[in-house]
Amino acid sequence: MQAAPAIQRLMDELERLPGIGPKSAQRIVYWILNTEKATALRLARAIEEVKEEVHFCPQCFNYAEGDLCQICASDKRDRSVICVVSEPKDIPPIERTGAFGGLYHVLGGALSPLEGVGPADLHIGELMARLASSEIEEVILATNPNVEGETTASYLARLINPLGVKVTRLASGLPVGGDLEYADELTLGRAIESRRQV
Amino acid sequence: MQAAPAIQRLMDELERLPGIGPKSAQRIVYWILNTEKATALRLARAIEEVKEEVHFCPQCFNYAEGDLCQICASDKRDRSVICVVSEPKDIPPIERTGAFGGLYHVLGGALSPLEGVGPADLHIGELMARLASSEIEEVILATNPNVEGETTASYLARLINPLGVKVTRLASGLPVGGDLEYADELTLGRAIESRRQV
Repeated sequence: MQAAPAIQRLMDELERLPGIGPKSAQRIVYWILNTEKATALRLARAIEEVKEEVHFCPQCFNYAEGDLCQICASDKRDRSVICVVSEPKDIPPIERTGAFGGLYHVLGGALSPLEGVGPADLHIGELMARLASSEIEEVILATNPNVEGETTASYLARLINPLGVKVTRLASGLPVGGDLEYADELTLGRAIESRRQV
Repeated sequence: MQAAPAIQRLMDELERLPGIGPKSAQRIVYWILNTEKATALRLARAIEEVKEEVHFCPQCFNYAEGDLCQICASDKRDRSVICVVSEPKDIPPIERTGAFGGLYHVLGGALSPLEGVGPADLHIGELMARLASSEIEEVILATNPNVEGETTASYLARLINPLGVKVTRLASGLPVGGDLEYADELTLGRAIESRRQV
């Protein structure tokens, strides 16, 4: 049997999603077929609404539904610190730590000569404009601790340091609760380099 | 940060799907946010269409989009054999074998005294009506090889045998390509019982 067209279409669309293979797509299709119509339509509407209502915050380039994103719009955030990240998805993990109360700036990627991503492809100009026009005292570079992220962080540090703004980078080292035995050499090397007096 | 309302709503709806936890839901949400609007809306439409267009085939209770399901409507199927399954999702695996070219009948479950599922809760009356009104020569009982499936198969065999229709049951035994060492006792016991002369 080839599946009925509407079922096959849904199967095909679901298989495009990340982490969803043919088996998972099939399970989801049967779940949708079996569930109440209202439940399935709520999912469909939620997808439509996200595409209709979510845009980029004009200030920090995080996802936003209002004029500014919820963080830029909040009056409870410390406006003297900006945390620079590559992607909007890097913000929720930082927020979950509760260790940061400032604003963000999303670059929209990381410098990668190999993939042809240069400074002009990222929201770096907008970051410099924010630094020029407001009283930012510290910029935390929270790009990923990989080649592209480190390259981007070094580039930004060189650019921002002359402005007299404090530039910091997230610490690298052993994961808390981790096991020395299983740490990779690079991480362990970095942990030794950045050792602190106790 | 609490996520923007539309994003949170989509996250919640996705987490209801089988096999989708918070992490997968988040990955899918970011994929949907990043993908082209047309792609995301195609997924939303596919969900809506499946709920609008798919109903149960009035003859065999498989999922159908037209009047009858594609199998009942096909003129290439052998109308003298009916394969009885518990759920519509049991049909694609049988079709994929290419070993069956007849029609199906979906019971809509299996007998389970524990869960209060009796014969009247399944499409058994409709199966008997099909057997009475058409020239069916064989009924293959393809309910699952578990307690409920076996109970249902025995019940149906007792009901259909007096009609003079041939009743068969899917063979149980070792999986092809399987390993004797890892077979469970029940399966291996069944394989010995059902041994064939070669």
